[in-house]
This record gives sequence, structure tokens and C-alpha cells, in this order.
Amino acid sequence: MGDNIGVYPGTFDPITRGHIDIIERGLKLFDLLIVAVAESPAKTPLFSVEERVSAINKETEKFSNVKVESFDGLLINYVRQKKSRTVLRGLRVMSDFEYEFQMALTNRKLSPDVETVFMMTKEDFAPVSSRFIKEIARLDGNVNPFVTPNVKRALKKKFASLEKAK
Amino acid sequence: MGDNIGVYPGTFDPITRGHIDIIERGLKLFDLLIVAVAESPAKTPLFSVEERVSAINKETEKFSNVKVESFDGLLINYVRQKKSRTVLRGLRVMSDFEYEFQMALTNRKLSPDVETVFMMTKEDFAPVSSRFIKEIARLDGNVNPFVTPNVKRALKKKFASLEKAK
Amino acid sequence: MGDNIGVYPGTFDPITRGHIDIIERGLKLFDLLIVAVAESPAKTPLFSVEERVSAINKETEKFSNVKVESFDGLLINYVRQKKSRTVLRGLRVMSDFEYEFQMALTNRKLSPDVETVFMMTKEDFAPVSSRFIKEIARLDGNVNPFVTPNVKRALKKKFASLEKAK
Amino acid sequence: MGDNIGVYPGTFDPITRGHIDIIERGLKLFDLLIVAVAESPAKTPLFSVEERVSAINKETEKFSNVKVESFDGLLINYVRQKKSRTVLRGLRVMSDFEYEFQMALTNRKLSPDVETVFMMTKEDFAPVSSRFIKEIARLDGNVNPFVTPNVKRALKKKFASLEKAK
Amino acid sequence: MGDNIGVYPGTFDPITRGHIDIIERGLKLFDLLIVAVAESPAKTPLFSVEERVSAINKETEKFSNVKVESFDGLLINYVRQKKSRTVLRGLRVMSDFEYEFQMALTNRKLSPDVETVFMMTKEDFAPVSSRFIKEIARLDGNVNPFVTPNVKRALKKKFASLEKAK
Amino acid sequence: MGDNIGVYPGTFDPITRGHIDIIERGLKLFDLLIVAVAESPAKTPLFSVEERVSAINKETEKFSNVKVESFDGLLINYVRQKKSRTVLRGLRVMSDFEYEFQMALTNRKLSPDVETVFMMTKEDFAPVSSRFIKEIARLDGNVNPFVTPNVKRALKKKFASLEKAK
Repeated sequence: MGDNIGVYPGTFDPITRGHIDIIERGLKLFDLLIVAVAESPAKTPLFSVEERVSAINKETEKFSNVKVESFDGLLINYVRQKKSRTVLRGLRVMSDFEYEFQMALTNRKLSPDVETVFMMTKEDFAPVSSRFIKEIARLDGNVNPFVTPNVKRALKKKFASLEKAK
Repeated sequence: MGDNIGVYPGTFDPITRGHIDIIERGLKLFDLLIVAVAESPAKTPLFSVEERVSAINKETEKFSNVKVESFDGLLINYVRQKKSRTVLRGLRVMSDFEYEFQMALTNRKLSPDVETVFMMTKEDFAPVSSRFIKEIARLDGNVNPFVTPNVKRALKKKFASLEKAK
Repeated sequence: MGDNIGVYPGTFDPITRGHIDIIERGLKLFDLLIVAVAESPAKTPLFSVEERVSAINKETEKFSNVKVESFDGLLINYVRQKKSRTVLRGLRVMSDFEYEFQMALTNRKLSPDVETVFMMTKEDFAPVSSRFIKEIARLDGNVNPFVTPNVKRALKKKFASLEKAK
Repeated sequence: MGDNIGVYPGTFDPITRGHIDIIERGLKLFDLLIVAVAESPAKTPLFSVEERVSAINKETEKFSNVKVESFDGLLINYVRQKKSRTVLRGLRVMSDFEYEFQMALTNRKLSPDVETVFMMTKEDFAPVSSRFIKEIARLDGNVNPFVTPNVKRALKKKFASLEKAK
Repeated sequence: MGDNIGVYPGTFDPITRGHIDIIERGLKLFDLLIVAVAESPAKTPLFSVEERVSAINKETEKFSNVKVESFDGLLINYVRQKKSRTVLRGLRVMSDFEYEFQMALTNRKLSPDVETVFMMTKEDFAPVSSRFIKEIARLDGNVNPFVTPNVKRALKKKFASLEKAK
Repeated sequence: MGDNIGVYPGTFDPITRGHIDIIERGLKLFDLLIVAVAESPAKTPLFSVEERVSAINKETEKFSNVKVESFDGLLINYVRQKKSRTVLRGLRVMSDFEYEFQMALTNRKLSPDVETVFMMTKEDFAPVSSRFIKEIARLDGNVNPFVTPNVKRALKKKFASLEKAK
């Protein structure tokens, strides 16, 4: 069937243990898994797209068949350009479901040859979104259960520099 | 029973095939259906209220018993002023449900003589909101499945002028 | 537009204050509202279809434009036979939503000319289903908040006769 | 990576157009897709497990890499015995989500090396479950939008023989 | 304020690690926590009410302020008779929510002086209901992650005796 | 058990009849209930934190065991500092559920000795959030069913002063 390439898109602001869990398990489904970092300027991310790509690279360098890239524009165009036919998404909680359902059906209308497959996030990390983690870090809470030490350091540094800039 | 007037309120930024489906089917319930365009400045709509009213007029001129108007202020006051007793709303997905439920019960408390009735959006258009469609248009994707050619042209023109203005 | 006939189908085992609320408010939408009692043998109802029709008749005799009938077979065929184009349903809670959505879309596929419209049940009666009410009555609890005195008496009598038959 | 085998389990009582859609799209993910028919005696299915396997065989004989089998016992044991690491499931509506989530996490606890992946059912068939389709068939409604002509004939024959047996 | 007594009602067929988690954490809220085992004949439980009470007693004998009892009839009457004003319930997943909401509001209508409070089940046990656990045990799967060794033995013995009785 | 202190956190912008209902019923569970007003600058509240604290004080001065305070920073740190082990939250509707679930599990990870307990908001006030109430007040609608006369006056005054400042 030639190369079986999966694309795992997201904002990853920052990458969480939950994302890493999906990457590890998603690897079993594909010959190559591309982690595709959406620039998402509309969400005014805390980290620049370069910082986010670099953080994911650090966390995934142990896997030989993962590639990290950024993209802008329509996801479906990016997927086709990468010669992939499969988008991978994690489902954490019920409220994700309808949004993801809407995205998957919209993408199918835009490009019927591309499929979206879903995996459930490991329950330990399940209910904690990047937004919550940033809030905890900002308030100097303990983010160890949710992110790796590398990302924790990055969060600390970022909030310190934002504090200074005030 | 005198005239049976329905009010179908929304932001319509822009009108989608899903909205048109509700209008067509809602017509069967009422002698006159008023499509009521909320100004919604808080949502910072892409199109001005005049542009939205004019787009709906174009799409509904084939129906004799549809009237398009804009309104500001409390919906329930507008409905009463129009001598209507019925608000029509479309339900697309489960996450709409609670918001609509909250609105319907709030309106009933404010004005017990006005009823809200719901129709389910035709499944072909079901999961695609105006927000998604604007995002696809902005990224130059194909919006044909979701809006009419008129609205597609309006979206193209709007994004081109915004691009220029940068 | 000729006569505007609505059909309000259900098992009504027994009719609750929530059902009566929907009937009263549904009346405003239609020239004639037919309360259509499904025989529903698969649900092994507590009351016979005749008992259910008679209980609804008692509760609605004050309204001139309500008619109570029983039906068996496909709802959509019954609706067409009654020259109606509109099915009325009440939505109480979120978990109703998907079932009703599925029913409405299935019915639209079977008969595109028949519409389903929804009204929200008045919140006072909102969260209490016929199943709960029967359970409370069986355990001799107070069902006054949920059913009329007539229906309360009928529940008492029914459970007494079932007890005797043991 | 050797053979990439997916298992698509279900009761398939009977197979619907929605199931066939998942099979067709699931094929792209796997070298071999095993449709695994659960005997499910607790659900007292309308069709015997042999009838269900045979119906699926008829609908999928055009695909070279589909195999249809029945199984009893724990799904996860069957999957391991087939040397598969991936269970495929379709998600139709929000209410499926929690049940499937619970199943996926339970299976992961029982066998961490087996993954469950989900695909969204094509929206045209989305909201119609096998249970509804059987009800429509029993009441002599039109099931063409939901099942193939073969399955329609099988439903007719089954209900006729049940009717006779009364 | 006198004694602060909580009632934790359920069918407990059988008691799971999730239930034990709620009991342990619920203990902090009350001077005495009564685990109230509903007879629930309508659910045709696997274990008799005596077996269920005895299993919970074994799991909770280490706590001094837990009492295990069975009850029949209306929960709210039992709670009042125990001089308690508070019902404790665990919420595992979203689909529990509406059922529990309905129960809590119904109970408040029946007895406004009794409150229902909810705690979230620890996520490790979150998505696994007693029904799933029984199914896994019946099919000889590993139930260690979900129940204690005592309950595991009881499940084994029960299914062996049911098998023999066939 | 020493003092049993509960913390009821929120933004309270402004306090609604629904909040007051939770406070009244929550009082039965605790020796002291601290209403903890989050500064929440990220939500750009309509009322200053001092105005919100003062409004709650007015509504709760009739209760001897309620204390109103403001806090900033991580809730869990505030709760520990107050020597409390229990956070009280109200659940109004299903969409609250997942957010609250996520918060409760996150807090448990940050501080396993602190519990979150939930009570259901009285249905009369159930579906109306502070956001809706502010919108109705801004548009000069009747907010009597949702807030007390004091809060109504405060809303009027606030919107008048905002209007003037334009």
C-alpha cells in the first residue's frame, strides 16, 4: 500500500503528557506520523510556533518515525500535500466530541479521500487541557502531572519573561 | 386566529444552506415568517447588518411570505412589537441544545405568552456553523457545499478587501 | 392554508403535568391538535391504551380544539392519514435530544413533507419522566407535584389491583 | 511492520448502510479488516449469527481484504488470537461516545497493547440505528434509505415468518 | 449541629473500587456514613441483597464510621427515618449526570429538607460500571483493576454456580 | 472533627438567586461556609471585586455562618490556607458538568486532601447564567426573576454609568 502516513494536527500550546500519549499510540497505526503544529494566530498562543515545534521535537526525538512540522492554511490541503490520507485526533472528553465530529465531516466534504481517525486519550491525562495547564503554571501551581520537565521549565521561563515585560 | 406570524432570529453572518433549509420548512408553519437579523455587535460580525439583510433578501425573494428585518435590543420585545407569539429556532447539534434551552426558558420568564419552537436542521448541512464556513473561506477552501453562489462571492469579496486593508 | 393540524404522539403512561403543559402551549400553533396515543405494547405499559386515552380526555375536555386518539403502526402513516403535516414533540432534557433528533430525521427520510417541531417542557415539570412517577406511586410516595388528582387516583387504583393480583 | 490487521466488532443485526460505510473507509487503514460478529445472545438478536455473517459476506464480497467471522467471549481475547492490535469502531452520535469511551478504556486496561480507533459514520446514515430500522421494517415502512435490497428482503422474510409463527 | 449523617445509596451489585473510593472520600464529610443497599428486584441483581451487604461490610470494616444496611421503598423515606439530611452520590461520567439530576430534583420535591451532594469518582475507576465488570467476569476476563480480590472471588464463585445450574 | 469549613468559589458577577440558593443549602453541610470571590481579571468582570464582595455580604448578612472574601491565585492554595478540605460547587446544566469534572480532577491532582462536592441548583433558577442576566439588564429587560432587588439596582446603576462614559 506504499507509505502509510498519518497527520496529527493541533496547536500544542504547549505539548502535554496527553498529546505524547496519543503520539506514542498513534505510531502503531502509521509508518510515519507527522505532528503538524497549526500556527493558530487567532488563538494568540502563549508560545511561538517555532517554540512549539522545538518542544515537540525534544519530546519525540526518541521515536524514529515521527516528524514535526508547522503549517498554516487549510488542514486538508496540508494533508494532501504530504501525500497522507489520514488525520489522527485525540478525544479527551465528551465536549470534544461534537467539535471533532463537525471538523471530521467538514473535512470529508472538502476532501472525501482523507479520513479522520480518533483515539481516546489515556485517562490519567484525560481531563486536563492546555488552557488549564497554562493557568496553573501562571499561578505557580504544580504542573508535573500534566507536562514533562522540559515543558515545565519552558512555561516557567515564559511566564517570568511576561511578568518582567509588564 | 388572525395572522400567524413567526420570527426566526439569528446573526446570519452569513446565511448558510442550513438556515435556508429552516426558512423553507418553517414557512409551512406560519402565514408570515420574519427573518430577524440581530445586529450582534458583541460578536463583531464579518458582514454589516445591512449586508446580512440584503444577502438573506436575495436568497428568499422566491418566497412570498418571508420578510427580512434587522433588530437590536431584547428579542422578546421585538417579537411582541411584531404581534408575533412564536420564535422559530433551528437545532443542529447537541451542544446547541442547552444554549437554546436556556434562551427559551429565559424568554418564557420574560414573556410567558411567546413560545419558542424548534426544528432540526437538515442533516446534510447539520454540522457546519457559520464560524467554520468563514474559516474555510478565509483559507480559500471550497465553500460550495455550505453556502449559495451569491454568498460565496460575498465571502470572497469581503476577505479580499480585508486582505487589502492590512 | 386550510386547516393546520398538529399531531402530538406519545405513550402517555400516564399523562403528566409536563404533557399537559405541552398540549396547552402547542394549541397556540395549530387549529386542531390531535393527541395520538401509541399502543406501544413493546413497552408493556401500566395502563391499557383505552385507559390512557380516557385519562387524557378528562384532562383536556376544557380545550375545544384537542382530539385524543390511539394509533398503531408507523407514526408517519398515521400523520398523513390525518391530513397533518406537523408532528409536535416536547423536549425535557438533553438526553431526549439525540433520540428525538434520530426520530425526526428518520421520519423526514420516510416522509419529507411532514415536519417535526419541538417545544421545551416547562421547567417545573422538566426532569420527571412517567417512569419515575410510576416508581414513586408504586412506593406510595407523593405524586401531586407531577400528575393531576385524577391521574393520581388512577395510579393508586392500578397499583392496588396489581398488589391484589399477586 | 508485518500485516496490519484491524478488527471491526459489532452485533450487525442486521448490517446497515452505515456499517458498510465504515467498512469501506476502514479498509484504507488496514491490510486486512476482519468484521467480527458478536453472538450477543443477551440482546436476543432478530437474525441468527449465521444469518448475520452471511448477510455481511454478501455485502462485502466485492472487497478483497475483508473477512467476516463470528466470535463469542471477550473481544480482547479474540483480537489477540487474530494477531491484531487494532479495534475499529464507528461513532454515530454523541450518546455513543461515552459507551465507546468506557469500552475503549476497559479494553486498554485488559490489554494495553490493543488500541481502539474510531471513525465517524457518514452523516447520511448517521442517526439511524439497527433498532430503529427493525422497527420500521416490522411496521412495513420503507427501509431503502437505511439498508441494501438484500437486507431489506431478509427483514421482510424474517418478519413474515415471525408473523406466521404467532 | 448534632450528628451529621450521610446516606450513600446504590445497588452495589457488586461493590467496585470506584464505590470504595467514594466511601473513603465521603467519610470526610460526615460523622457517620450509611451505605444503603437498595434491594432493586427490578434490576434482577446477580447477588442477593444479603450477599451485597456482606461484601461491602468486608471492604469497609477498616472504617469506624461506616454502617451498611439494606433498604426497600422510597429512598427519601429511608433517609428521613435515619435522621439524615444528606444523600451522597458519585458521578462517573456525563451520562450519569442527567439521571442523577432528575433523581436529585425529584427527591427535593418529595422532601425539600433532604439534600443530595455529589462527588466525582476517582478517574482510575471512572468509566467502568458494575454491569461491564460482571460481563468481563462472566467471560473469564481479568477484573483485578476494577474490584478487590474478595469481590473477584465472589464473582467467580457466583458464575461457576450459575454455570452448573444450567 | 473540629471545624468543618466549606469554600464556595466563583466570580459572582453579579450574585444570582441561583447562587443564593446554593449558599442556603450548602450551609447545612458546613459549620462555616466561605464564599470566595475570584478576582478573575481575565473575564473582565462588570463589577469590581469589592463591589461583588459587598453585594454578596448584603444578600447573606442574615446567615451567621457565612463569610465572604476575595482571593487571587490558585484556588487550592486558598482553600488550604483557610484550613478547609472541601470545595462546594453548584451544577446547573449538563454543559457545566465536564468543566467542573475537569476542575475537580485537576484540583485533586494538585491537592489530594481537598474534596469537591456538588449540589444541583434549584430548577427555578437553573438555566440562567450571570452572562445572560447581564445581557438582559443591558437591554433593559426585567431581571426580577433572576436577581434580588439590590442586585437589580446595582446592574441598572452600572449600565447607566457605562452608558454615560461612552
